Amino acid sequence: MNRIITISREFGSGGRTIGKKVAEQLGIPCYDEELINRLAEASGMSEDFVKENSEYTVSGNWFANALAGRNMYGHSPQDDLWRIQSKIIYELAEKGPCVIVGRCADYLLRGKADCLTVFIHADPKFRAKRIVEVYGEREEAPLKRVKDKDKRRKAYYQFYTDSTWGDAENYHIALDSGVLGIDTCVDLIKRLY
Amino acid sequence: MNRIITISREFGSGGRTIGKKVAEQLGIPCYDEELINRLAEASGMSEDFVKENSEYTVSGNWFANALAGRNMYGHSPQDDLWRIQSKIIYELAEKGPCVIVGRCADYLLRGKADCLTVFIHADPKFRAKRIVEVYGEREEAPLKRVKDKDKRRKAYYQFYTDSTWGDAENYHIALDSGVLGIDTCVDLIKRLY
Repeated sequence: MNRIITISREFGSGGRTIGKKVAEQLGIPCYDEELINRLAEASGMSEDFVKENSEYTVSGNWFANALAGRNMYGHSPQDDLWRIQSKIIYELAEKGPCVIVGRCADYLLRGKADCLTVFIHADPKFRAKRIVEVYGEREEAPLKRVKDKDKRRKAYYQFYTDSTWGDAENYHIALDSGVLGIDTCVDLIKRLY
Repeated sequence: MNRIITISREFGSGGRTIGKKVAEQLGIPCYDEELINRLAEASGMSEDFVKENSEYTVSGNWFANALAGRNMYGHSPQDDLWRIQSKIIYELAEKGPCVIVGRCADYLLRGKADCLTVFIHADPKFRAKRIVEVYGEREEAPLKRVKDKDKRRKAYYQFYTDSTWGDAENYHIALDSGVLGIDTCVDLIKRLY
């Protein structure tokens, strides 16, 4: 298998930007959740379904849906999406060296590919400020947006991997992008590759 | 205040060795728990008391003692040791740039000193192998020694800092020394200093 960098990140920490910069500087592709969702759609799932059931959903209560929407086999539509996204990640990892941002790729590829697993985090206040700069103002207060998204990602990770999101033990390197700065994070990851 | 590197580490991860190497290469002192305990003894606590009540105790159940040995003010001998060790860490941090290994220094100096906070971890099997190489065989199986010590350090950290030991958010950088190697960890930390 190929050398892959997986990046898990807190919302607003700049993890996606770091992933893109690392990939650019190393001359390898970067796959983020948006792209993985597009691939899931291409595999036959409707765009609306993917949006509604993705970790990325903004309005819905993903976790409640994932628990409530199960059929008699304890199986939910979210599980279908999870399975398709997992398959996509395995295929991307087999294609060649790349950066994969989000989607529990660290968990999925553990022991299956030669991976460097990275976690990017930062103080919630730093992230709240950053999301307004990057994504613009919303009705909801930025700090609340950050905390809600953290909660959802944590639940999602716990639900599908049975381990704790943000636990240092799950990653080869975890970095505070707020204190260290995005470019320093990019440099350190490149150095380890 | 001065530029300090604090290193928290899982038992057997090589965190102390990394701290010593970083300090040596930067030309600054490294204070580990052994030294901080010696300073606590110098401040009037008996060697036996320090040994018995330190996070480092091998045979005793530190956590049970810390909860059971409280007087009517909810105060235990472990709390005295904690207070004295905290005072020692503040004084060391004021003296000049240094590396401090263990003793919740990351928590104690948060917001009080210009710190780089580091967490070093590794797979339990890697650590079990390493402690036999470094500290020799004991009656107890190495993997059990590693897990017991982790448990104790986790409880100690939680008890005095009210936050979770090993949670990536508590550290500027967390590194897997088993995968990355001790010298790579030393290089990355030096680079950030």
